[in-house]
Amino acid sequence: MDIKQKSILAKKASNLMSAVKSETKNTALKHIAEALKKNSKALVEANRIDIERSRESNLAAPLLKRLKFDEGKIEEACTGIESLIAMADPVGVTLRAMELDKNLELYKVSCPIGVIGVIFESRPDALVQISALCLKSANAVILKGGNEALETNKVLADIIAKASEEAGIPRGWLTLLETRTDVTQMLALDEYIDLIIPRGSNAFVQYIMKNTHIPVLGHADGICHVYIDSAADITMAVKISYDSKCQYVAVCNAVETILVHKDIAVTYLPAMKKALETENVEIRGCSETRKIIDAKEATEEDWRTEYLDLIVSVKVVNTLDDAISHINTYGSGHTDVIVTGDKSRALKFMDLVDSADVFFNCSSRFSDGFRFGLGAEVGISTNKIHARGPVGLEGLLIYKWRLFGNGHVLADFSGANARPFTHRPL
Amino acid sequence: MDIKQKSILAKKASNLMSAVKSETKNTALKHIAEALKKNSKALVEANRIDIERSRESNLAAPLLKRLKFDEGKIEEACTGIESLIAMADPVGVTLRAMELDKNLELYKVSCPIGVIGVIFESRPDALVQISALCLKSANAVILKGGNEALETNKVLADIIAKASEEAGIPRGWLTLLETRTDVTQMLALDEYIDLIIPRGSNAFVQYIMKNTHIPVLGHADGICHVYIDSAADITMAVKISYDSKCQYVAVCNAVETILVHKDIAVTYLPAMKKALETENVEIRGCSETRKIIDAKEATEEDWRTEYLDLIVSVKVVNTLDDAISHINTYGSGHTDVIVTGDKSRALKFMDLVDSADVFFNCSSRFSDGFRFGLGAEVGISTNKIHARGPVGLEGLLIYKWRLFGNGHVLADFSGANARPFTHRPL
Repeated sequence: MDIKQKSILAKKASNLMSAVKSETKNTALKHIAEALKKNSKALVEANRIDIERSRESNLAAPLLKRLKFDEGKIEEACTGIESLIAMADPVGVTLRAMELDKNLELYKVSCPIGVIGVIFESRPDALVQISALCLKSANAVILKGGNEALETNKVLADIIAKASEEAGIPRGWLTLLETRTDVTQMLALDEYIDLIIPRGSNAFVQYIMKNTHIPVLGHADGICHVYIDSAADITMAVKISYDSKCQYVAVCNAVETILVHKDIAVTYLPAMKKALETENVEIRGCSETRKIIDAKEATEEDWRTEYLDLIVSVKVVNTLDDAISHINTYGSGHTDVIVTGDKSRALKFMDLVDSADVFFNCSSRFSDGFRFGLGAEVGISTNKIHARGPVGLEGLLIYKWRLFGNGHVLADFSGANARPFTHRPL
Repeated sequence: MDIKQKSILAKKASNLMSAVKSETKNTALKHIAEALKKNSKALVEANRIDIERSRESNLAAPLLKRLKFDEGKIEEACTGIESLIAMADPVGVTLRAMELDKNLELYKVSCPIGVIGVIFESRPDALVQISALCLKSANAVILKGGNEALETNKVLADIIAKASEEAGIPRGWLTLLETRTDVTQMLALDEYIDLIIPRGSNAFVQYIMKNTHIPVLGHADGICHVYIDSAADITMAVKISYDSKCQYVAVCNAVETILVHKDIAVTYLPAMKKALETENVEIRGCSETRKIIDAKEATEEDWRTEYLDLIVSVKVVNTLDDAISHINTYGSGHTDVIVTGDKSRALKFMDLVDSADVFFNCSSRFSDGFRFGLGAEVGISTNKIHARGPVGLEGLLIYKWRLFGNGHVLADFSGANARPFTHRPL
């Protein structure tokens, strides 16, 4: 089957999935977990082939680690599936109910989006997590994982499709794409695919966004800021800057630029430098910064750069408004933090910074679906429609309007003797 | 100022608008209503010029009627503004609240989307309604009305911008575009514009959707169906078919195709034909239909056509599943109706038909923001993300995540001795 045929099949499956009962979905999830455990040997063997090939092609050690899918990872994946089973069915929830007239009742009810294309990085556990989220939310899914994990992903997708379809989920609801060419073809199939969620490098996500008319949910850049206000506690400011920059540098919610109010720069900057130096962080400062601490010179380009590395740009600002303006100009609308002892200044920052996540006196690293208590996450969105910030089950749903009448026609509600609507909440 | 500069100004205004207080927004709305009344002479005079020019260029009578903006329309527009003033502020509403740890509290709070581009038809009252909705939801707006209404729109936009900015709404929040070239330029400004809502012909909306990377909210086609089930009451079925087709033919929620179950076709079709003939509706039928009533032959193309005219296509189907499948294949996901005496069959239809509005025993013509009790409406969406069906204030909002901490860093919540999250709803 080619990609178009697979997508048509996924669309057909998705048309049936919205009516699949909660128990059937939960049984399917249970069967998937059992099948993963039962087939652990085949999985580990497929993963061994992937790791061997990737090692031969000199894949970097951290990526090799992410690629690994062993008994422990299988166990973790199953724990995730069990927590999804325990969650209430997000489909069919009444979000609003209103009587329009006697016996004419309107209900806004949650329903799946349809067919979702997810392109993800080399971690095979992401395939399990995404498939399980889509199943619980009754969406069909077209998956494309990292090439390094091809063998593991093939076995995983087979196990999940077989176990779920045997439990009553419509055939073809889960499809695995295997090549980059497949992805290019998928981008043109807006007739069958309702949403694309790309995860990966900035350049890759930008490419997807510019090359499809299918709605895209996700983020390209993660240019996050910590702003140290004049009213900040220095110890807290250093602690939060250090954690936001160093706790894990290669992720989108790590901080790339630190802004500091001029009145506190002379105390904060040396303390910050001392902390960041323990991790050998390279500091690139504005001219004011470089009057206070020794640092490389930051260029205009630095304010727009997501380093994903042990590098940080630092700028001294004159006012809170200047900090907000810098963030709204150079930031990517992902996660931005203010450290201050003055809550009214924090609230102003949180009102005016136009980002998905606006944090007060805590690390940018909390920006994550699990930490937010959303259960699993399909990604982080910097979109300004549909879903913003960490996206869990809720972001995979839309709604439909159901209107129940008893022969009602509009003619009775229009013209000179129009009957008025009651518009009474139910 | 060119379009780019206007858009930059709108973006700057929008960055401030999220913090504008409810009272300021309501005062601004009040001032707008007062200014519209005070300047009614200038408005009526501008509208006279538009009507004269349009009459000279032979604009059709129904369009001339829509173009008209007199004292009565001004009064109506002000009533609409007053009802918006009475509504609760939709911005800053807490949608979810959760404790992640002691003194680490997460709030999901509604906020404006940013800068919204709205392209609308020739009714000048649409300009007032859309501006007022955007102001109440704290969005900046770039407007483009029908060319026929150019003079009226210019005066309206001036009045609204002046009255609102004097009341404290940031300068540049409302911008009027005047030419089609302006629109083409706007489509490329994805850096400054967050959402485009086009209203108008199918071809025009399709053009917008295919020529921008800005998210588009709206609908191209409105291919709506009424399905007459085997268990339908014939009188009700005829009444609903007639109202759905004839109550107002030129609108997106009018019905274009009637599907009828084979077991009831022989009774329903002659009764339907009799009712539709009173309005001289042209019937295009499938071969089964034409065995029962006299009708033109329907082609494959008819199932995909939005007539917006006194024409209807009719098809006999063998089963409820066939009706659902026809709608999901040829429909546009707008509004689809089932007429049946069997509620379980209605629920199946409402589960499986993948449309924004799924109606039971009532006319498709109820698909409208005012009738749904949403207040005013910016349009009807067949999108499957963000907002679906009639879109009112809610569809103009997104949310941000606010996290309040007390020096919390992620290092404490990860690794071997990780502190667990409390994830306690607040």
